[in-house]
Amino acid sequence: MTKSELKSLKQLHQKKYRDEQKSFLVEGKRSIVEAIRENCDIDLILICNELAEKEKELVRQIKEKSIRFEIISYNEIQRISDVENSQGIIARVKFLNYDENLIFDKRNEKKRIIFLENISDPGNMGTIIRTADWFGIDSVIICKDSVDIYNPKVVRSTMGSLFHIPIFVFDDAQKIIKRLKENGYTIYVADLKGEKYNKVSYSTKSVIVFGNEAHGITDTLKKYADKLITIQGKGKAESLNVAVSVGIIISQVCN
Amino acid sequence: MTKSELKSLKQLHQKKYRDEQKSFLVEGKRSIVEAIRENCDIDLILICNELAEKEKELVRQIKEKSIRFEIISYNEIQRISDVENSQGIIARVKFLNYDENLIFDKRNEKKRIIFLENISDPGNMGTIIRTADWFGIDSVIICKDSVDIYNPKVVRSTMGSLFHIPIFVFDDAQKIIKRLKENGYTIYVADLKGEKYNKVSYSTKSVIVFGNEAHGITDTLKKYADKLITIQGKGKAESLNVAVSVGIIISQVCN
Repeated sequence: MTKSELKSLKQLHQKKYRDEQKSFLVEGKRSIVEAIRENCDIDLILICNELAEKEKELVRQIKEKSIRFEIISYNEIQRISDVENSQGIIARVKFLNYDENLIFDKRNEKKRIIFLENISDPGNMGTIIRTADWFGIDSVIICKDSVDIYNPKVVRSTMGSLFHIPIFVFDDAQKIIKRLKENGYTIYVADLKGEKYNKVSYSTKSVIVFGNEAHGITDTLKKYADKLITIQGKGKAESLNVAVSVGIIISQVCN
Repeated sequence: MTKSELKSLKQLHQKKYRDEQKSFLVEGKRSIVEAIRENCDIDLILICNELAEKEKELVRQIKEKSIRFEIISYNEIQRISDVENSQGIIARVKFLNYDENLIFDKRNEKKRIIFLENISDPGNMGTIIRTADWFGIDSVIICKDSVDIYNPKVVRSTMGSLFHIPIFVFDDAQKIIKRLKENGYTIYVADLKGEKYNKVSYSTKSVIVFGNEAHGITDTLKKYADKLITIQGKGKAESLNVAVSVGIIISQVCN
């Protein structure tokens, strides 16, 4: 492990360098095991002595898949890590790539898509991806003003689900919504005012749109809604957390 | 503002001192407005020059309620603050106190209670309290091994809901569950294996129990369950985030 390689690894905490290298870091055994299982393009795994000694089966799997790996000291791992107490294993993974036909192929008769307009909190973004995975949502579409899905905190809070579910990041939200409509999707927009989410009968090809934590959906996107849906409350809270809203609505949609 | 008072304020970031002073800090305009509106016992509000100038109505309210307040520099506020960019207003509030009759009075015919066994993540705890408030849950019961509800990150993520809903913290979970059963409550425990949560008809006096993020409910508590309930998944995720689970289940219970 040369000094310059160490430096380029640490740079991956910043979006700019991730975009340059088209790579991101994954930390922790569970997430890395998922990335291996899903045949992600992993070009390096760093593991500390103690863990390599303990996790013989994992090391065997890494060797079997011919993934380059290096055993280094825990201190070196900690220097690259984003968390206070590293688990002692970090992988560098190439950006994930999915075929747009997964969402735009007209032969798809049953599809559930989550569309995130401007989710800014990494914990929320990760939790939404994890929740979408739990309920078997087909794809997640993210607009580019949202937090980067390869941000270390997002990766961490997906708990491995980042590798399970196709995620598409698009620049032009409006253009994509139009294409989805042309492809026969019904657009449901989560909003504070709308039809009760649990009184709606969802189309077999549904896109559910969620907006920013503080500002909700932009008017630009809202005008493409076939239906506004809402989670009715009774207490004094001003709003629900967006990841919780996603969970409540898709538990109904995927019921 | 003396040096020793500044010091004692900063100490409130630590549980030990909060317990000693029976007080905690609340930051940000929105949460402090909620604390004032709910007549919490606020013994000090610190506000920076610029904000005091801008928020004349808030200052009027503070004066009207005869709450002690001091205008200090933004830098001083930032030194006390738990967040990187303080909003310029911090309050010291006395621990909240609720009458146990709110949960143990046998005349209560309709009650929905959330019972948290060992929630360890402050963001989850705060989000659960906010969600409970949204759906009009009557009380939240928390076992003492959970994260402290006065932890700054918990307070922040409740978004003011901490002041809306009675919260009880108890030492002995088992004893409380027994008392709840004696008082006619049905105990539903969220678990990975159980009846589908949306096929259950919930009793008018329901307690829904949620366990630790990583380990779930302890066997000690599980044996008091009248019914285990589960959120069925379809994808590859190993579990759901606990705050999302709470949202999904109580949206059904409070439907």
